[in-house]
Amino acid sequence: MTVSGTIPAPRGPRLRELGLRIGRYEAGPLNAITDVPGVLVGHATVWRDEPEPPEGRGVGRSGVTAIVPGDPSTLLTHPVPAGTDVLNGAGELTSSIAIREWGVIETPVYLTATMSVGRVYDGAVRAAIAADPRVGVDNFVIPVVGECDDGWLSEARVVQVDVDDVEAALAGATPERPAEGAVGAGTGMVAFGYKAGIGTASRMLPGLDATVGVLVLANFGVRRDLVVDGVPVGAELGGKGARESGDGSCIAIAVTDADLGPHELTRIARRSGLGLARTGSVAYDGSGEIFLALSTSGRVDREAGGTRMVASPKMLNGLFAATVEATEEAVLNALWAAPDVTGRENRIAPGIPHDAVLELLRRHDRI
Amino acid sequence: MTVSGTIPAPRGPRLRELGLRIGRYEAGPLNAITDVPGVLVGHATVWRDEPEPPEGRGVGRSGVTAIVPGDPSTLLTHPVPAGTDVLNGAGELTSSIAIREWGVIETPVYLTATMSVGRVYDGAVRAAIAADPRVGVDNFVIPVVGECDDGWLSEARVVQVDVDDVEAALAGATPERPAEGAVGAGTGMVAFGYKAGIGTASRMLPGLDATVGVLVLANFGVRRDLVVDGVPVGAELGGKGARESGDGSCIAIAVTDADLGPHELTRIARRSGLGLARTGSVAYDGSGEIFLALSTSGRVDREAGGTRMVASPKMLNGLFAATVEATEEAVLNALWAAPDVTGRENRIAPGIPHDAVLELLRRHDRI
Amino acid sequence: MTVSGTIPAPRGPRLRELGLRIGRYEAGPLNAITDVPGVLVGHATVWRDEPEPPEGRGVGRSGVTAIVPGDPSTLLTHPVPAGTDVLNGAGELTSSIAIREWGVIETPVYLTATMSVGRVYDGAVRAAIAADPRVGVDNFVIPVVGECDDGWLSEARVVQVDVDDVEAALAGATPERPAEGAVGAGTGMVAFGYKAGIGTASRMLPGLDATVGVLVLANFGVRRDLVVDGVPVGAELGGKGARESGDGSCIAIAVTDADLGPHELTRIARRSGLGLARTGSVAYDGSGEIFLALSTSGRVDREAGGTRMVASPKMLNGLFAATVEATEEAVLNALWAAPDVTGRENRIAPGIPHDAVLELLRRHDRI
Amino acid sequence: MTVSGTIPAPRGPRLRELGLRIGRYEAGPLNAITDVPGVLVGHATVWRDEPEPPEGRGVGRSGVTAIVPGDPSTLLTHPVPAGTDVLNGAGELTSSIAIREWGVIETPVYLTATMSVGRVYDGAVRAAIAADPRVGVDNFVIPVVGECDDGWLSEARVVQVDVDDVEAALAGATPERPAEGAVGAGTGMVAFGYKAGIGTASRMLPGLDATVGVLVLANFGVRRDLVVDGVPVGAELGGKGARESGDGSCIAIAVTDADLGPHELTRIARRSGLGLARTGSVAYDGSGEIFLALSTSGRVDREAGGTRMVASPKMLNGLFAATVEATEEAVLNALWAAPDVTGRENRIAPGIPHDAVLELLRRHDRI
Repeated sequence: MTVSGTIPAPRGPRLRELGLRIGRYEAGPLNAITDVPGVLVGHATVWRDEPEPPEGRGVGRSGVTAIVPGDPSTLLTHPVPAGTDVLNGAGELTSSIAIREWGVIETPVYLTATMSVGRVYDGAVRAAIAADPRVGVDNFVIPVVGECDDGWLSEARVVQVDVDDVEAALAGATPERPAEGAVGAGTGMVAFGYKAGIGTASRMLPGLDATVGVLVLANFGVRRDLVVDGVPVGAELGGKGARESGDGSCIAIAVTDADLGPHELTRIARRSGLGLARTGSVAYDGSGEIFLALSTSGRVDREAGGTRMVASPKMLNGLFAATVEATEEAVLNALWAAPDVTGRENRIAPGIPHDAVLELLRRHDRI
Repeated sequence: MTVSGTIPAPRGPRLRELGLRIGRYEAGPLNAITDVPGVLVGHATVWRDEPEPPEGRGVGRSGVTAIVPGDPSTLLTHPVPAGTDVLNGAGELTSSIAIREWGVIETPVYLTATMSVGRVYDGAVRAAIAADPRVGVDNFVIPVVGECDDGWLSEARVVQVDVDDVEAALAGATPERPAEGAVGAGTGMVAFGYKAGIGTASRMLPGLDATVGVLVLANFGVRRDLVVDGVPVGAELGGKGARESGDGSCIAIAVTDADLGPHELTRIARRSGLGLARTGSVAYDGSGEIFLALSTSGRVDREAGGTRMVASPKMLNGLFAATVEATEEAVLNALWAAPDVTGRENRIAPGIPHDAVLELLRRHDRI
Repeated sequence: MTVSGTIPAPRGPRLRELGLRIGRYEAGPLNAITDVPGVLVGHATVWRDEPEPPEGRGVGRSGVTAIVPGDPSTLLTHPVPAGTDVLNGAGELTSSIAIREWGVIETPVYLTATMSVGRVYDGAVRAAIAADPRVGVDNFVIPVVGECDDGWLSEARVVQVDVDDVEAALAGATPERPAEGAVGAGTGMVAFGYKAGIGTASRMLPGLDATVGVLVLANFGVRRDLVVDGVPVGAELGGKGARESGDGSCIAIAVTDADLGPHELTRIARRSGLGLARTGSVAYDGSGEIFLALSTSGRVDREAGGTRMVASPKMLNGLFAATVEATEEAVLNALWAAPDVTGRENRIAPGIPHDAVLELLRRHDRI
Repeated sequence: MTVSGTIPAPRGPRLRELGLRIGRYEAGPLNAITDVPGVLVGHATVWRDEPEPPEGRGVGRSGVTAIVPGDPSTLLTHPVPAGTDVLNGAGELTSSIAIREWGVIETPVYLTATMSVGRVYDGAVRAAIAADPRVGVDNFVIPVVGECDDGWLSEARVVQVDVDDVEAALAGATPERPAEGAVGAGTGMVAFGYKAGIGTASRMLPGLDATVGVLVLANFGVRRDLVVDGVPVGAELGGKGARESGDGSCIAIAVTDADLGPHELTRIARRSGLGLARTGSVAYDGSGEIFLALSTSGRVDREAGGTRMVASPKMLNGLFAATVEATEEAVLNALWAAPDVTGRENRIAPGIPHDAVLELLRRHDRI
């Protein structure tokens, strides 16, 4: 965690507290990915105001976010079932090849800036070795690191994140509701021309005894495309936003406590794209919409194997709809929480104007 | 074309004529897939009221629709570049393996009912041999046949389509705006609990000198999920619709006159899923959302090869957005055009109530 | 089954009886796909010597082969877990999209000629309806039909297979060792310039209590590429073979009684390509190497779901190696069994010369 | 380049010089990936004999290899068309998601050890920024880093590679024939129980005016599976080899000067798996067979687009066969060049016994 200067605080209250209801399922108690039992989230925020390189590291708005789906010392021997899908692939999620083949992840999931992936991977290797002495002794891990590009706000001619930021993110991981907006990996991210970053939401499927939590790193879209619960907010607000190129990306991580294997999780991961579409995503050429879905209940001994449920169509339909809803709401939460942030070259990514949006939502009968 | 009884006529005028604007691009002159030069569409409708099997073939509400992307006698030697993508794959598009590998199609695209695919494939082989004497002489074709299941309305213990229906669909193919709703392959289809079927729309990219046309066979969704231009029409209209299982499917065919190859067309095909999401699709487990994109300008000699454009990001972004918009509007057009249709066991798939929807759209400032 | 003229009988004995050992695992009692309990295979051979079209149907060398992985009346409600993979996709396997999504098949697997796929699909629909009265009543099936092109030997300006051939193949399905070579779907197929067609082999994994059986429809390769157990037989025999274009295809079906789901079966299916590579396959542009793997033990109730094993790495490694070996041997068995066959325009696909090959294998210490 | 102790020299002469001919095409002048004009290769070898961690970094047998497909200062604006494929995905190739989407690479290709990927990615970012001042200024790159696990020989509880090793590999990149075996990323790799690592080969397609070069990082297989030009060398040599688990991996990079786009390059990449199969690969569960194919002639301006060839089937067939052959020979070259290497805990990976293998090849008429 590197802080020089003052990080603006996230804004509240959340949209759901203001009356917005996305979809038909109830949110969990935290309306967060941490509603899934055993899931922790931690952030390390990099906020740096130094002279430009090569004198200093410039204006850094960056960071690392860690999603920990279980005790790290057990992830090698009892890896977490996982599936991944890509809507537009101008981005990176390390270990995605192994996830497609083996259907599991063996480390926490880390999010960061595009050109910081190397350092976070390196820090994640160090953390995995520290967490489990079997790692590195006739065993290896391929850490899971996803990214979006925060270079519109954050100086990118030098890498802003350091290896130690990984440890900081892990050390701060808690089962509480994660901070949203300009925090951790979300510190420098921009969506629909507004400041965005980390967002989260959850859904409960009571009859099915399952919860789905989603966390997004939102960094995509152009202003005119933004839709909030069906209302064309971006077009109505108008004006030119921060980074109007259509580049940017969105990583979405869905976690459930339903007992699922990789085949089904791949299908669930794909549904995050439908949630993005509902916020206005076109998945432009320069954008990396990359999705990951995990099951905390499907873990078995890697060497011995085990048994796992085959989901019914009813269970799948509930999980699909919940993932769509939770992804949509997580993106909105990321926008809603993020304040104005000034970055390199005095570029400003404005926080979405709460009053104007609420007025629009009221006018369209949404709240 | 088999007709016993009276086929109810499609309803008009279209939503765009009533003032609805989906997205930001202008529609082509026909607002149809046939705005792309050289593209023809033909329908063969099966409407049959016979005793139940085994005495007769029962109540048949089915058919064939043919999309002809160029002179059939040239499709073997100068095949049409193609890309395909799947959002949820509970369906079939024959030749999809070859499209992924070779990146072309060699026959028109045919749409029909799930269990009629075999007969349509057979008819398509016959048509290909008739169109080009080289087919079958040290050359083969794998016809392109997509499907949705019309078995909610149409008796499915016997196959309703006959091989000759393929020829009828081809014979009727024209460059005019295709009929929409309960026609051709769409005769027995249902979407969001309302009668649906064939829909089409187009978008022009003037600065890029390109047109995108989309045709859908819409047969998916449950009523509560239906969204029209952001308005939660399904939830507001309420009530229980026809086939409320979440099964069903949607085939979307996008055609452009931009000079593109399979790599880019695959990416364009994927965008149809974002258009479906905007109408309320969750891509339920039992649904087959299968997409195909074609370029009429990218054809080269199969044996000799040739040259082709590499699209710029600007071109791709325009094509992506246009495909999302046109797919969304095509689905709405399918719903809007279809009248009430009564099928087997006196099941009724109601046409969407025009007045109530228009009232909702007005109330939400959409028209 | 259409027979005019005399079908030449398959040749024996098999290579394994002559001392050739492919790989390190033992074959099952039949060294055939039918070593997997519950699996039946049936052939319908089309052998027709009529005037050329349009007077007659010409010289037909074609047919249908059915692989039945369980009682057809149970396949809809308890479908068979399946995975599919493609090495080169110039071919067709209907239902492959649904297999990728749902991970199951709901009908027997049918093999036939490329342009006969439609009729076999149609016959398969009829057979499914006959086998289970639930099919067609708020339920549909997408039959599994794979193909290779037999048009080098068989007149292809007309479709040689009829819908009734499907029923004939099913009616003849038995748990015995299937006939190999120029029989059923293999009647007109050519591989490495020699007559080929149907071949099968199996492997037992005693410590793992599992059997893998493979059946191929072999129709690929050019003579100079043929390798038999590492010996460059094609180059050594020399001469120009039948169809030297490199076109052609190979479908491989692997079945196991290990309890596996679609994720693992997809990986097993992919291993068939390694077996083909060992026989000399380059997977030329015009070839369709398409693979399917099934588990007879992994079936669960479609609506209710169930439980399934997660395979250990040890189990997977055994299954992978067994699939590679069995596929390699199945291709060789197809070549070995097939006699000289004369087709249209008096084209001759010669049977591989047994004595010369055995001499080469002896010289290279292989038998 | 970190060297403490003495690195054993690669062994020669190469198999081709000893008379072995793999396949039917001629090799290029260097029989190396650097036969493709403009391609450079550089190695940084890490050879470290320190006390075990935490006192020192232990016995390090590791490194970095860089494949540079063109002037690094031009790779952002005129990226290199690329395709990738996976046979078994227990491994990592960063940027593979972007390669699948955009069909290009924007940095050199780096190879290293699994848990060093982070540092090499970080060094690659630094190198990209140094090579082109546009990188990091409203532009980012996702470096291409592939890996195999060298932890059988090399201490892996600490990361052996440093960020500076990337610069060293680049600095040493030349158009000469790369050193093979235990060098660069290959320093600690093991294949078929013998010491292996880097290998390379090439093929010329004279009539097509194209060259294909392949470089592999070979680290896979168990001894009994090794096949050399069809001869079961592993089984005949017998004995237990180094690392007999079946884990390990193989990265293969194919480069051609044919003018190709991503669709075709993906197909070419897949052919490397057929080359591996011919050396005995089963692609075991724990192995990462990951392939990349590049075209040095297909580069166009990223923003403006351009034109590119559509390959003829004849061109593709030549490129496919050449890739299979060159991959097979590259693996054999890796084995042949590598000497005995002693690693951590005094584990020895023996060099393949030249005399015994030559005797076997002679006995089987291969040389």
